[in-house]
Amino acid sequence: MLDITAEGRTASATVGRPTGSVTLINSFVVPPERDEAFQEMWDSTSRYFMAQPGFVSLRLHRAVSAEAPYRWVNVAVWETEADYRAAHSGEEFRALVTHPAWHEFPSQPVLFEVAAQAGPA
Amino acid sequence: MLDITAEGRTASATVGRPTGSVTLINSFVVPPERDEAFQEMWDSTSRYFMAQPGFVSLRLHRAVSAEAPYRWVNVAVWETEADYRAAHSGEEFRALVTHPAWHEFPSQPVLFEVAAQAGPA
Repeated sequence: MLDITAEGRTASATVGRPTGSVTLINSFVVPPERDEAFQEMWDSTSRYFMAQPGFVSLRLHRAVSAEAPYRWVNVAVWETEADYRAAHSGEEFRALVTHPAWHEFPSQPVLFEVAAQAGPA
Repeated sequence: MLDITAEGRTASATVGRPTGSVTLINSFVVPPERDEAFQEMWDSTSRYFMAQPGFVSLRLHRAVSAEAPYRWVNVAVWETEADYRAAHSGEEFRALVTHPAWHEFPSQPVLFEVAAQAGPA
């Protein structure tokens, strides 16, 4: 389940066909003493994603709960699933996410649609 | 880890002291054939939370990935951790989340701070 290959860094195939924006929720396993190393890797990798067509927004979250299976979680919105897929393929993507420094931070990316919302988006 | 008691429905104690807003990311186990029942329970329960002091926003996400360990994820922002804690205690909270209909939908609530963000909030 925690797959550090380039394929493992992409949410699996979808069921149904999202027609609007999609939200990636990507959860990372990071030991507390490696927070700084993780954030450096994430900062440099996220610059690639933010520059891709269809990128809307992201929020990177760090757990404050004492017990958290995934201590860092990125919530990123893309205009369409096709934009998400395009940004998560190709040589530049592959080179970034297969960087050896990522090996110590397994992640679990899952793609969602927003089913309900309240308050400011 | 997937604890259906009222205590299990609240993010565990925090380390450090978040001084600003906090974000609850609550992940639910829902079999695809029970999506409708889950959403009904969630709609009625969320009305309580939206009416509490310090509630800012929520987005309920449904997975489109074929393989997702948690198919529904709520991302909710609270003004302060104290507001979050207050809303997740007391008799009304306890009565809601210990409703027998919730037993089939275990959840994993974790509290976060936003460490980085880009694009519209």
